[in-house]
Amino acid sequence: MKNFTSVYDVQQIDALVKKALAYKAAPFKDKSLGAGKRIGLLFLNPSMRTRLSTQIAAQNLGMEPIVFNVGQEGWALEFEDEAIMSGSTVEHVKDAAPIMGNYFDILAIRTFPSLKNREDDYSELYIKQFIKYAGIPVVSLESATLHPLQSLTDIITINESLNASPIPSGKKPKIVLTWAPHVKALPQCVANSFAQWVNAWGKADFVITHPEDYELHEQFTKGATITHNQDEALKDADFVYVKNWSTFNDYGKIYCNDPEWMLTNKKLAATNNAKVMHCLPVRRNVELSDEILDGPNSIVTQEASNRIWAAQAVLSEILESKK
Amino acid sequence: MKNFTSVYDVQQIDALVKKALAYKAAPFKDKSLGAGKRIGLLFLNPSMRTRLSTQIAAQNLGMEPIVFNVGQEGWALEFEDEAIMSGSTVEHVKDAAPIMGNYFDILAIRTFPSLKNREDDYSELYIKQFIKYAGIPVVSLESATLHPLQSLTDIITINESLNASPIPSGKKPKIVLTWAPHVKALPQCVANSFAQWVNAWGKADFVITHPEDYELHEQFTKGATITHNQDEALKDADFVYVKNWSTFNDYGKIYCNDPEWMLTNKKLAATNNAKVMHCLPVRRNVELSDEILDGPNSIVTQEASNRIWAAQAVLSEILESKK
Amino acid sequence: MKNFTSVYDVQQIDALVKKALAYKAAPFKDKSLGAGKRIGLLFLNPSMRTRLSTQIAAQNLGMEPIVFNVGQEGWALEFEDEAIMSGSTVEHVKDAAPIMGNYFDILAIRTFPSLKNREDDYSELYIKQFIKYAGIPVVSLESATLHPLQSLTDIITINESLNASPIPSGKKPKIVLTWAPHVKALPQCVANSFAQWVNAWGKADFVITHPEDYELHEQFTKGATITHNQDEALKDADFVYVKNWSTFNDYGKIYCNDPEWMLTNKKLAATNNAKVMHCLPVRRNVELSDEILDGPNSIVTQEASNRIWAAQAVLSEILESKK
Repeated sequence: MKNFTSVYDVQQIDALVKKALAYKAAPFKDKSLGAGKRIGLLFLNPSMRTRLSTQIAAQNLGMEPIVFNVGQEGWALEFEDEAIMSGSTVEHVKDAAPIMGNYFDILAIRTFPSLKNREDDYSELYIKQFIKYAGIPVVSLESATLHPLQSLTDIITINESLNASPIPSGKKPKIVLTWAPHVKALPQCVANSFAQWVNAWGKADFVITHPEDYELHEQFTKGATITHNQDEALKDADFVYVKNWSTFNDYGKIYCNDPEWMLTNKKLAATNNAKVMHCLPVRRNVELSDEILDGPNSIVTQEASNRIWAAQAVLSEILESKK
Repeated sequence: MKNFTSVYDVQQIDALVKKALAYKAAPFKDKSLGAGKRIGLLFLNPSMRTRLSTQIAAQNLGMEPIVFNVGQEGWALEFEDEAIMSGSTVEHVKDAAPIMGNYFDILAIRTFPSLKNREDDYSELYIKQFIKYAGIPVVSLESATLHPLQSLTDIITINESLNASPIPSGKKPKIVLTWAPHVKALPQCVANSFAQWVNAWGKADFVITHPEDYELHEQFTKGATITHNQDEALKDADFVYVKNWSTFNDYGKIYCNDPEWMLTNKKLAATNNAKVMHCLPVRRNVELSDEILDGPNSIVTQEASNRIWAAQAVLSEILESKK
Repeated sequence: MKNFTSVYDVQQIDALVKKALAYKAAPFKDKSLGAGKRIGLLFLNPSMRTRLSTQIAAQNLGMEPIVFNVGQEGWALEFEDEAIMSGSTVEHVKDAAPIMGNYFDILAIRTFPSLKNREDDYSELYIKQFIKYAGIPVVSLESATLHPLQSLTDIITINESLNASPIPSGKKPKIVLTWAPHVKALPQCVANSFAQWVNAWGKADFVITHPEDYELHEQFTKGATITHNQDEALKDADFVYVKNWSTFNDYGKIYCNDPEWMLTNKKLAATNNAKVMHCLPVRRNVELSDEILDGPNSIVTQEASNRIWAAQAVLSEILESKK
């Protein structure tokens, strides 16, 4: 593995999942793999799980992680080629990235979308510029349109769950990605990325449900059944992935905040006693009800805790490729 | 020791002090105790001594400390049960804490009081919620009403001082906690906690002095002599602990900023050549005069430097209990 | 070496350069030198290269670096003696520095000038107060008037370049420090410091060029040829160091932002195919053109990457002096 920015960087999802679960069983088994290596963790935006789990994953492999909050601790970066930098940006990625490439062995970067212009966000300029100029492997800690470490964690958690309670008669599990209400306009990354990975994994009956105007890009969803009828979507589901995202065509807005779309125990009754997932952070009683989050069907803590093993498997792959 | 949030978590103060002083003599003697263990240091508020000394203490024991500035680097947390999270908080402690519990072996947390509502602050909701949901040992790096690592340091420093210059004829030392002026409304934590620990230690003649309206809660002060007459309180003192705190009944205000309450050499003359203590940071020439802080009676640097050994003794106790 | 705040702390520049280049060839060769030692990195201002490279340098020597963003994570510091601290500063350097001195083995500090009062800035009060009160070696990560780790890196990079392509017939290289336009008033540190080090190194024909009003202090420039004619200065140059700084007499202002002073390929044609240097961050197409930065003459990445080896050589010298 050279970079890790989407499912297309993964040769074999099942092998990567297996690797992650092996680290969960024995976190320090490759403690010497990263000895004398350094990873730079660059945050252009806030992060909790991603920040902590990637540090821990790196340490488990014997690497030294160095965290850098780009805007707060350093300088605002410019990403546009040929920019005349007389505004608020202080340093161009063309100058910063190659230096990072000399300071570190792996570079990991979090950059949110602006939610102002879809073409700009979907061009993934920021992370592409880092890849172009850093000269070392780049790991996405969430980019403008994708969050691959989260999606790998999700697939790991679904696998764990299926290993513990296999679907009778070997049927494919039904996985439903459902939109949920929120008070703020949020990126489409987690939903895009989850769709991309479930489709690439290919072992599920995959349904996506959301109100009108909240489409996701077909490049990620192709292969899934899409419906505006949440009740129908939830029927017999084995896994329900809950997530808010903002509008697509009139990009990055909130049109509907219909509380009817919040998952409750009543809605859950239509499922096949489905496990409920969410990437977190979650707005309780807005996106997802207390009764679900505190109930027996929620696996959100297990999911978030698996972030360590997802990151560790990815870093391990990259370190092994560099040897 | 399971958690460390007040003196009630300590079985034997003298044994803990002895342990801390043993670490001061040989910082790395238990370097393997924390090998492969991680402590998360969560800061909801600023910190210098506590932040640095706890990191160092953890490293001295071979642990990996990971610092996380919750609001600045991540998401604002919600602590109220059943909250409908449509406001400014992004993540509930019920969701964040169990994940931290899976990421770390020990969790340490700093949370200041709001100083708006005494019942809320004195309920210690924040740290109690972390304890309830994290599932791992929790260490207070200062909470709404207490600062136990500071108080342990204070008792260590008083012991060191008494070991170096014992009180003639074996009399109990007289320890005075005196209120001092300040320009901002400050928490009552350090004063509460110092009172709680000196009373539990039980080896001092303990006097508290403050202007009217600056009472401390009886649950912490019970056993001490309390007076509004600072001159009388200081008479023959062996240790003077200087600290500002805000009003109690009409909670969290500044009524009096009387400069007469600032400790000076003239006031110190009434003491038994007392050692002067303060938790720091201190507003020079407002809370405490230059002449005292720069003079031979101040032991504030020794006191702050002992923060490492206090934290190391506490982390060591917790690691040993987990074995 | 006791402290490192200017070229005057260095006994032998050539030996230090040689040491740095030896670390570049073998980063971990002194991994045990700093074992059990800690360096505190205090940032009163933003930093990227200095922050990252000094952490890496310390780790390469086996030291544990602890980063502390003073104002963001802790308390605003007071530096004036006898201050009555009833304003916005919360802690005096007299109280903070000795504690840092007990927590760490080496203290490294970044403090920018105010650019409001030249006498104040040029007194270097901040770093001098830290040296006075910390009681341990102090390393400048850029102070009000100097940036010695940058200048050491610059001399290292010039040496590397001359080793790779020696000047024919053993002539001294011509080094030109040229002012460049900028949109903000910047410190004089990098220019002062570069002048100080090139003069102390003594192996160059050294020319400084800038518009009127942008003088540098003679204590740093003495020995250099100074001219307002950039074209004349650039003639036959082997190295061109590009940097903006603010006005000197009417201190800390921007008078001229003449784009004519920006280095372009046309101007570079007058040089002896000069290598172009800059400390970074650089405002592209304001301070320095894309065509230069992306062209074959720029050595800014090499220069910035050498920051690790400069810091490592300095920390190593200090550790060896303490043994």
